[in-house]
Amino acid sequence: MTSRDTTLLLAAPITWADRLATPLAEIAPEFKVFVRDRDCYEPEAVDYVLGTGAAPGFLSTLPNLKLVFSLGAGVDGFLSDPYFPKQVPLVRFVDRNLSRAMTQYIVLQVLIHYRQQRLFDLAQAERKWEPMAPPRCTEETRIGILGLGEIGRKAGERLRDLDFDVAGWSRSRKALPGIESFAGADELKPFLSRTDILVCVLPLTPDTSGVLNQELFSVLPQDAFVINVARGGHLVERDLIESLDSGHLSGAALDVFAVEPLPKSSPLWTHPKVTITPHVAGVANPRAASLWVRDTVARYKSREPIANVVDFTRGY
Amino acid sequence: MTSRDTTLLLAAPITWADRLATPLAEIAPEFKVFVRDRDCYEPEAVDYVLGTGAAPGFLSTLPNLKLVFSLGAGVDGFLSDPYFPKQVPLVRFVDRNLSRAMTQYIVLQVLIHYRQQRLFDLAQAERKWEPMAPPRCTEETRIGILGLGEIGRKAGERLRDLDFDVAGWSRSRKALPGIESFAGADELKPFLSRTDILVCVLPLTPDTSGVLNQELFSVLPQDAFVINVARGGHLVERDLIESLDSGHLSGAALDVFAVEPLPKSSPLWTHPKVTITPHVAGVANPRAASLWVRDTVARYKSREPIANVVDFTRGY
Repeated sequence: MTSRDTTLLLAAPITWADRLATPLAEIAPEFKVFVRDRDCYEPEAVDYVLGTGAAPGFLSTLPNLKLVFSLGAGVDGFLSDPYFPKQVPLVRFVDRNLSRAMTQYIVLQVLIHYRQQRLFDLAQAERKWEPMAPPRCTEETRIGILGLGEIGRKAGERLRDLDFDVAGWSRSRKALPGIESFAGADELKPFLSRTDILVCVLPLTPDTSGVLNQELFSVLPQDAFVINVARGGHLVERDLIESLDSGHLSGAALDVFAVEPLPKSSPLWTHPKVTITPHVAGVANPRAASLWVRDTVARYKSREPIANVVDFTRGY
Repeated sequence: MTSRDTTLLLAAPITWADRLATPLAEIAPEFKVFVRDRDCYEPEAVDYVLGTGAAPGFLSTLPNLKLVFSLGAGVDGFLSDPYFPKQVPLVRFVDRNLSRAMTQYIVLQVLIHYRQQRLFDLAQAERKWEPMAPPRCTEETRIGILGLGEIGRKAGERLRDLDFDVAGWSRSRKALPGIESFAGADELKPFLSRTDILVCVLPLTPDTSGVLNQELFSVLPQDAFVINVARGGHLVERDLIESLDSGHLSGAALDVFAVEPLPKSSPLWTHPKVTITPHVAGVANPRAASLWVRDTVARYKSREPIANVVDFTRGY
């Protein structure tokens, strides 16, 4: 083996690939790096793929693929490929920077809603001095985190420390100090019916696709607020607009959409109860991602256990 | 002594006094309660005053006054009275609800700025999908808390837990895990020059009046952001506008103003870099305030020590 025997293919938009190239060259100079959408490479040479997803069938054209690195916490961009080579481990990037950024975003949107910042913005635009207290006190404002992975846990802890009443729902029960844990299908409705501000951080799987729909919204209390930072595929956008327009939901903050960029024709853009951000809640840090790839490849080569390998039956 | 021997005068706007009357009647039914601006009462009968401040000379007309309760953490509304009867202890309301509300407000305004929510709001209004990462990473974003009392400490801790680089400045040095402490006049400049987001939670005293001025702003790094949740008297509004317009400061979030309500003619209302809220960062909870008054009166009567008595030489 020579020092040039490791070939990494970047399966990400070119702007992303460019942001990765510099730290990768510095941190893992022994890697030969190609960008899928730009460079020429031999499919047989590719050892590793790093990216956000791949077109159906693409990965199966790489006969010597050893590992696939998902740059985001969500792996639906890879698992939506029916030809995904399941003998190849798919590894999720679970990163302090990423979960920190997601946590900040969640805390921000909860506080904008709870502290009525939108109303103050409108009042400011009209030079109106209109003091208002939050409609209910903090400890009676119930946050519900749908998905208690790394990000859901962190966000729940920070909101708990700000004195909100925080609960979470996940497949299996979790023990988190000060955060009530609901688990499994049977406890979804009790969880929703006690949730004033719902935060979706679920992985996108066939089970969770379209979970934010009319039926779920109807179980939330009157004036509930919805924050989706997971995937556009979780949300039935038409159902959300209906529940907002009927007056049942008081608002929503959305970072992810069924189609991204969100088409100009989408009624979400101008809905007075909706905050739109362009998929910015969490962005992987290129340097941290480079370190993770280098270290994981080293572990793979020395046959050590690798963290955050996706369970194909669970889908995350 | 009969059960009617305790007379409390509410020296607060009538709307505030009305919010206090119900919990006070329930929690301290033995108190005889009068509202200064509405009820007839004999000055000699007044044992205690509860309020946000008093006109110069007013308190000195109450010959049997035993304690003055300041409903807010800031006591400048009382201390600005040159005839304040200094033999009467002035007690500050230091309340979990109040410091919690202030902390939420500070975290909210820090995150709106750091996560560029205003730019996303503008982009949404134009249906523009423009992903942007924060200009610097969280751990290199330096928060500076001017004033490390109860509120400053709490806010610093929550921002530290969100992974910001937090420091605080106060008269005497504090030992707060993960928060760098700067102390005294000599360390103000070093503190300011390392501060990207300055949060003012100082008490308003002759020493701190007008502290947020051109000279201070000039020591902050280029593109610093200023949050004032203390008192309008801390800020020289004209200097702030100059530092924003020169491009040195990137923005400000203001909850308090030299004149409140902020006059319609103020240029702050429409300044594109300024967020205005109508003195809502922290509002005392009437029930918690009633419990505090009842318990403090009981301690006073049984000659037990009382917490949060204002030091007239320090002014807070």
